[in-house]
Amino acid sequence: MERSYRLIISCPDQVGIVAAVSDFIAAHRGWITEAHHYTDPSSQWFFMRYVVRASSLPFGLEQLQALFTPIAERFGMQWRVGDTGVKKRVVLMASKQEHCLSDLLYRWRSGELDCDIPCVLSNHDDLRSYVEWHGLRYCHIAVDPDDKAPHFAAVEQAITEASADVVVLARYMQILPAAICAQYPARIINIHHSFLPSFVGAKPYHQASERGVKLIGATCHYVTADLDAGPIIEQDVVRVGHHNSVEDMVRLGKDVEKMVLARGLRYHLEDRVLVHGNKTIVFG
Amino acid sequence: MERSYRLIISCPDQVGIVAAVSDFIAAHRGWITEAHHYTDPSSQWFFMRYVVRASSLPFGLEQLQALFTPIAERFGMQWRVGDTGVKKRVVLMASKQEHCLSDLLYRWRSGELDCDIPCVLSNHDDLRSYVEWHGLRYCHIAVDPDDKAPHFAAVEQAITEASADVVVLARYMQILPAAICAQYPARIINIHHSFLPSFVGAKPYHQASERGVKLIGATCHYVTADLDAGPIIEQDVVRVGHHNSVEDMVRLGKDVEKMVLARGLRYHLEDRVLVHGNKTIVFG
Amino acid sequence: MERSYRLIISCPDQVGIVAAVSDFIAAHRGWITEAHHYTDPSSQWFFMRYVVRASSLPFGLEQLQALFTPIAERFGMQWRVGDTGVKKRVVLMASKQEHCLSDLLYRWRSGELDCDIPCVLSNHDDLRSYVEWHGLRYCHIAVDPDDKAPHFAAVEQAITEASADVVVLARYMQILPAAICAQYPARIINIHHSFLPSFVGAKPYHQASERGVKLIGATCHYVTADLDAGPIIEQDVVRVGHHNSVEDMVRLGKDVEKMVLARGLRYHLEDRVLVHGNKTIVFG
Amino acid sequence: MERSYRLIISCPDQVGIVAAVSDFIAAHRGWITEAHHYTDPSSQWFFMRYVVRASSLPFGLEQLQALFTPIAERFGMQWRVGDTGVKKRVVLMASKQEHCLSDLLYRWRSGELDCDIPCVLSNHDDLRSYVEWHGLRYCHIAVDPDDKAPHFAAVEQAITEASADVVVLARYMQILPAAICAQYPARIINIHHSFLPSFVGAKPYHQASERGVKLIGATCHYVTADLDAGPIIEQDVVRVGHHNSVEDMVRLGKDVEKMVLARGLRYHLEDRVLVHGNKTIVFG
Repeated sequence: MERSYRLIISCPDQVGIVAAVSDFIAAHRGWITEAHHYTDPSSQWFFMRYVVRASSLPFGLEQLQALFTPIAERFGMQWRVGDTGVKKRVVLMASKQEHCLSDLLYRWRSGELDCDIPCVLSNHDDLRSYVEWHGLRYCHIAVDPDDKAPHFAAVEQAITEASADVVVLARYMQILPAAICAQYPARIINIHHSFLPSFVGAKPYHQASERGVKLIGATCHYVTADLDAGPIIEQDVVRVGHHNSVEDMVRLGKDVEKMVLARGLRYHLEDRVLVHGNKTIVFG
Repeated sequence: MERSYRLIISCPDQVGIVAAVSDFIAAHRGWITEAHHYTDPSSQWFFMRYVVRASSLPFGLEQLQALFTPIAERFGMQWRVGDTGVKKRVVLMASKQEHCLSDLLYRWRSGELDCDIPCVLSNHDDLRSYVEWHGLRYCHIAVDPDDKAPHFAAVEQAITEASADVVVLARYMQILPAAICAQYPARIINIHHSFLPSFVGAKPYHQASERGVKLIGATCHYVTADLDAGPIIEQDVVRVGHHNSVEDMVRLGKDVEKMVLARGLRYHLEDRVLVHGNKTIVFG
Repeated sequence: MERSYRLIISCPDQVGIVAAVSDFIAAHRGWITEAHHYTDPSSQWFFMRYVVRASSLPFGLEQLQALFTPIAERFGMQWRVGDTGVKKRVVLMASKQEHCLSDLLYRWRSGELDCDIPCVLSNHDDLRSYVEWHGLRYCHIAVDPDDKAPHFAAVEQAITEASADVVVLARYMQILPAAICAQYPARIINIHHSFLPSFVGAKPYHQASERGVKLIGATCHYVTADLDAGPIIEQDVVRVGHHNSVEDMVRLGKDVEKMVLARGLRYHLEDRVLVHGNKTIVFG
Repeated sequence: MERSYRLIISCPDQVGIVAAVSDFIAAHRGWITEAHHYTDPSSQWFFMRYVVRASSLPFGLEQLQALFTPIAERFGMQWRVGDTGVKKRVVLMASKQEHCLSDLLYRWRSGELDCDIPCVLSNHDDLRSYVEWHGLRYCHIAVDPDDKAPHFAAVEQAITEASADVVVLARYMQILPAAICAQYPARIINIHHSFLPSFVGAKPYHQASERGVKLIGATCHYVTADLDAGPIIEQDVVRVGHHNSVEDMVRLGKDVEKMVLARGLRYHLEDRVLVHGNKTIVFG
């Protein structure tokens, strides 16, 4: 893949944004390979993602940022430039269930997911051998149900030491403290099961089975302090019927969870997801 | 379509039910064209649907029922025999929105839905001309928001006079009184929008849009006194994205609503839906 | 819906196209509400769709076109401006089957499809009453199987007299002569069933049933002289199983056909479909 | 999972089959936990699958078979009894691509796929380490493009020595000789990509991209001597668009391939797939 810069912008909408940005790129003979704009009609907020071939520009990332800053300031932009030459560092967190972790590791080792994985964190030691086969570091941080604070302190330190750009909760079954969530806004990705209608409380698959639902789903979202209510990145469902046992539903749920998480993470790694308030713009 | 009897059975599971029923049919040289069994593992309840060619039996419906009664009693069966030679009478109820009604009427006039429609009831007069073009009776029963009782009394009377086997709430936007619901258990079918997660309260599509959901759905269910919580017959979803306005979502929601309602009604008309507690067995 | 202009552009890709177009719009204080770009990597062809609020520009359509012409010439653009203030004229053609026609007419009368329908053409008289109930003109042009030329001559004349922008073959079961196809490039829309794998020859649903396919589909495409091989606008599938009879498959096929055709036509009416060679760019 | 017998039957349809079988089971107090029947209307062939708890019968598999034989002979049945206490032996064959193999191995090691894997065969050595991490035997049998006979002879021998019940071609990119196919009727499972329409010849993804298809799919089928034309077990599709490169399509195709193959193999292992002529009955 040729090296590219991804220019990600959001700001209040007004006349001339696209002209200013595209003039800037064109003035430096930048070659745009992907371009997405969107204006949210209710908030009148503007979102933009440009992918520019690095080799088409006469300068590097730092000068690109320096030269673009006046334009960004003129329009009050929140912006960043992603550089495909620098892989994002993804810390994976899991528990005992392997379906999401296994799927992500397959995609990583086959080159589908363009990232580095500095370590896999888990509150159990079960998945060590599998992870280490990949040559990855496995970090087992046990959790004491009666005093979880040391666990989370160690988790936070491990994430920091890994210089994580993204944390993926690949069926990590603990609720992260709000303090950690706040440190990584729109950078912690979770997957959880979803139903129509929703089921509150324990054993949701049992509830769904009792209710005879015909679809079960999964939602990939950014983690915020408000549990499972962060901005949704991706969702999907799978069909079930009365003949499916609770075990079947759990199994089918795993399939949809791993697919949805992999898609969500991919969108994130490709800088396709922009967050505004509690919703996402996903430039497919 | 050749005339058939549909034998619908549910009872506590035990050894010998299928043998007894199939012996009975075979003893009379009955030709079974469809057969479904299912035992719910949690309740140990047994469900069965047999379709038998009427012409293969040496007697008619009444004698079939009389001869089968001892078997039914032996196993404590809840049972009925559907006769494809007698169309079910379906009362359609609508309000101003046409999407579900229009789709059902198309399916009825093209022969897809095997039923009679003695009348269409509505609290508005908007759809009269369209309904009457089909040669169907349109019954406008206005509702006074400050005193809905007369409306519901008239509705109840109209349903009774129509000798309705089934009532379909095809976007009829009023909540039926519990007394009417109780009179037609598992015989009133409703359609409503569904989301992952659910949104409680007014303007659900606005809430879904604010939350940035990626799927919107619809649920077809039997109406019980507990609003929107009756046994689910069918569900489906459609994909949406940030680029879809609330109006788009409403429009796409209509498409999925009409498809799901049509499928649910069809299953019901073909005696494919068995209710047990708050869930359905749908023999596809 | 507020009046908008839709600027549709395709041309060889080069640096500066977006800058030139967006500068032009911004210089006249045009308010862009939707923007899509795409460069096809294999052909290095560039595609663009801008939606601009008409009221934000200080001039009307003609002057917009006049002022834009030099830019278009500079980049060798194929371009057009759609005006939402002028409804496209859609001639619907059907035969005896009603499912697609009925669905499109519902969407038209409910305001979902923003177009005029100058007439419905058919080689049969079956659907007259239904069409005329809508206040639409029904034009029955019989076809003599032994000499189809007069039929097609009359069809061509009717389309011309209707000043059709688009012709929709809503299960019109005749093959249009190449001469008519050539007159309306990327303006005649057809729907046909699709399978995996494809089945060549007569009775495709029977073949699909014999083969035990698990999915049946539909393809909406522009008509070219090469039968059923024109650029694909939209596709979808529905799941079937061994328990589905050929009649079931035909019925389910109708559902997917009408959905896919409605989506395809909507994309076309909203100027979302750009054709390049034998493929489409659909800006969703 | 409690041990069960799966009674799989197909025969010409006639009155009394179900009665005879269910009488037999009931007479021995057999507890039926799943039951499916189906009669194909065109061939008038009857298909049946009963699952009976082994512990509910007063005898073992051999006596079950001996006692059932007279009934089978009376109705001219093709039949077999699957025993969940004896795992099927599945030989996996792969080449260099890992997506299907990796997914199946995950499902096997997590207990989702109830089978033994005596060995993994490949014409390349690339996947050895991954397979051997599972404690499975990896058998590399190189293929000489100019003389494939020795390769296939070795493959055949390896399959025989492994006492394979099933062979899964998990993206094994060689065409099995007809002689091997004939030895394992309805016991060799393949996965291949599928499109609407089909594309014949080389580089189908490139062709699909050139044509602008909106869906790409996969078909899981039994291998017969007629390449890729054997009975279809399962199919599915995934949506693509103009913005998806050929590489994207290949990647998305892998996802649908591995899901469809896993579902197809699972159906097979659970004795849910009955073959009749060139189609399958899949009792879901």
